Amino acid sequence: METLTVELKERSYPIFIGTDILGQAELIRPYIHGNQVMIVTNETIAPLYLEPCKAALSDFQVESVILPDGEQYKNLDTLNSIFDALLIHRFNRHATLVALGGGVIGDITGFAASAYQRGIPFIQIPTTLLAQVDSSVGGKTAVNHPLGKNMIGAFYQPQCVIADTNTLDTLEDRQLKSGIAEVIKYGLINDYEFFSWLEANMDKLLQRDHDAFTYAVKRSCQDKADIVAMDETEQGVRALLNLGHTFGHAIETGMGYGQWLHGESVATGICMAAHLSALNGDLGQKEVKRIQQIIKNAQLPTESPPELSSSKMLSLMSVDKKNVDSGIRLILLKAIGHAVLSDDYRTDDLQATLNYYCKS
Amino acid sequence: METLTVELKERSYPIFIGTDILGQAELIRPYIHGNQVMIVTNETIAPLYLEPCKAALSDFQVESVILPDGEQYKNLDTLNSIFDALLIHRFNRHATLVALGGGVIGDITGFAASAYQRGIPFIQIPTTLLAQVDSSVGGKTAVNHPLGKNMIGAFYQPQCVIADTNTLDTLEDRQLKSGIAEVIKYGLINDYEFFSWLEANMDKLLQRDHDAFTYAVKRSCQDKADIVAMDETEQGVRALLNLGHTFGHAIETGMGYGQWLHGESVATGICMAAHLSALNGDLGQKEVKRIQQIIKNAQLPTESPPELSSSKMLSLMSVDKKNVDSGIRLILLKAIGHAVLSDDYRTDDLQATLNYYCKS
Repeated sequence: METLTVELKERSYPIFIGTDILGQAELIRPYIHGNQVMIVTNETIAPLYLEPCKAALSDFQVESVILPDGEQYKNLDTLNSIFDALLIHRFNRHATLVALGGGVIGDITGFAASAYQRGIPFIQIPTTLLAQVDSSVGGKTAVNHPLGKNMIGAFYQPQCVIADTNTLDTLEDRQLKSGIAEVIKYGLINDYEFFSWLEANMDKLLQRDHDAFTYAVKRSCQDKADIVAMDETEQGVRALLNLGHTFGHAIETGMGYGQWLHGESVATGICMAAHLSALNGDLGQKEVKRIQQIIKNAQLPTESPPELSSSKMLSLMSVDKKNVDSGIRLILLKAIGHAVLSDDYRTDDLQATLNYYCKS
Repeated sequence: METLTVELKERSYPIFIGTDILGQAELIRPYIHGNQVMIVTNETIAPLYLEPCKAALSDFQVESVILPDGEQYKNLDTLNSIFDALLIHRFNRHATLVALGGGVIGDITGFAASAYQRGIPFIQIPTTLLAQVDSSVGGKTAVNHPLGKNMIGAFYQPQCVIADTNTLDTLEDRQLKSGIAEVIKYGLINDYEFFSWLEANMDKLLQRDHDAFTYAVKRSCQDKADIVAMDETEQGVRALLNLGHTFGHAIETGMGYGQWLHGESVATGICMAAHLSALNGDLGQKEVKRIQQIIKNAQLPTESPPELSSSKMLSLMSVDKKNVDSGIRLILLKAIGHAVLSDDYRTDDLQATLNYYCKS
């Protein structure tokens, strides 16, 4: 097992990465302070991992709430069903929530923890690649609104993250690839060496090689933890982690949550960001091609869904959280391994990018 | 105009108390940093104060959302209507929310501000006595759940509080008295001198004497600000501000939100806390009588609603936020002006108190 730390002073916490650690009682127990534990999971994960997780917590009063599976359920109604369960069982402010599942479960459980009785502790047990390398780390929690993804939420850090790479064995192919999109993202932002490693090792990841997974998860978590430690609440550098996400969120929202997976949307979004970066004169065609190629090699989409018009995309992008009064801010690439937050691009180039990608 | 400061380091903010300050542009503008302002108010307050408030903000893009009036609307659905308005108008993370109204508006707007795009600034303009002396100060924000009051929320401080005592002229009598309950509370907790002043000046408050109001608002805010500065997130001493509230919240929830006003429920709750404190051997009968008398003089209820059984009360009290694994924690009185957080009382005495007050 490997341990990383997200350094956030009194809110610092460990990330444990390893195999067969999900059910290790001695690992999780020190992070639970009261007597009540509510495990939040979904109908896909519950049959696989709820029982071992409960068994590891047998010293406590353990209850669980099983949500439907999918991004389309990451909303205020589902959030409220967590509050229902907590109140029906009379859970107090010393209770702990455990998020057992992918990014949707982690985001919604984290937000529930931040808001229940104005804040109770929570633990992340991510069971998808995407959640292990990205959403479980860094304390961004949220639910979606029909008009914008992750528009309602909180910065709220977990007590610890337990990433059991064995859970990736049970992951659907499509979910696995979706996670790889976020892994590629870290290479592009500020880790050229990792990007090169990914170019050389993509087949191993697609074949679920355990060593490759453990390396990719650890390196991704370290890259993310370093950035989060510099800027917990996204006043600056943390925004770089949103490479491809302004385009990607617009695709997810525009297509209807759950149609395109998050990582699929981000993959296309990265291609669009690369295209605009090239129009902006920052990125060479050779680098754009390398980016498209690695995304293709990961069997992820490099093209926008045909149903989505460029005007609809632009409208959806205008409610992005990074935006300022003067307009849409984007993460652009100066090179592979060098992303920047920018509103220094021509609106015409953004329009040309959307026109190029959106067929309607 | 008087200015107090809530001392919370980088989250410190001023409370302005005075007459005719609601529409003073130069007072509010320094606390708005972006270009977008959303005023959240209700259908009672909008016809009275929305226009002067908008006029003071004419330099900005100002939108407004008008909610129905009443505690029964302080829920996730109404909260979502604020998010709808923000997203329809494409408000970004630099937008400011303005809470123009009573405690419900302040609590729900503050929570909306804490969660919209994971946190945007907000300003409190309380227009009821209760909001001016209590809910607008200290950063407790929340909405209700059918199973418990204020169960979903955040600690989130405003940029400033503008308490215009002129707005109390338009307040319904019942709302005015509800606010007086919270004023009495401060005297009981740790300000015996203020309690004595209130005994002597209750008639003036009921007659809406402006000088008496200004004094009561300022003293209450100072008492509250001092406690909040010591304990922002209620790890200890701040819980004292909940004197009468565990009983009171159970009455509000049990009767259906909006039936008994918050202050009315707290008034009865204070009587119940005093009764239990006497059974506990801490408070003399003479002091219990003084407490009952000042609440009667304020024309507030000293008896629990007959519809509510003692078993229902006890059940509702068991989800209070102060509770620990071992049971219900209450604020009890050692003397007038000396409240304590306690689970050092006999369960039988709590039961006897509930049996005494609850007729069914």
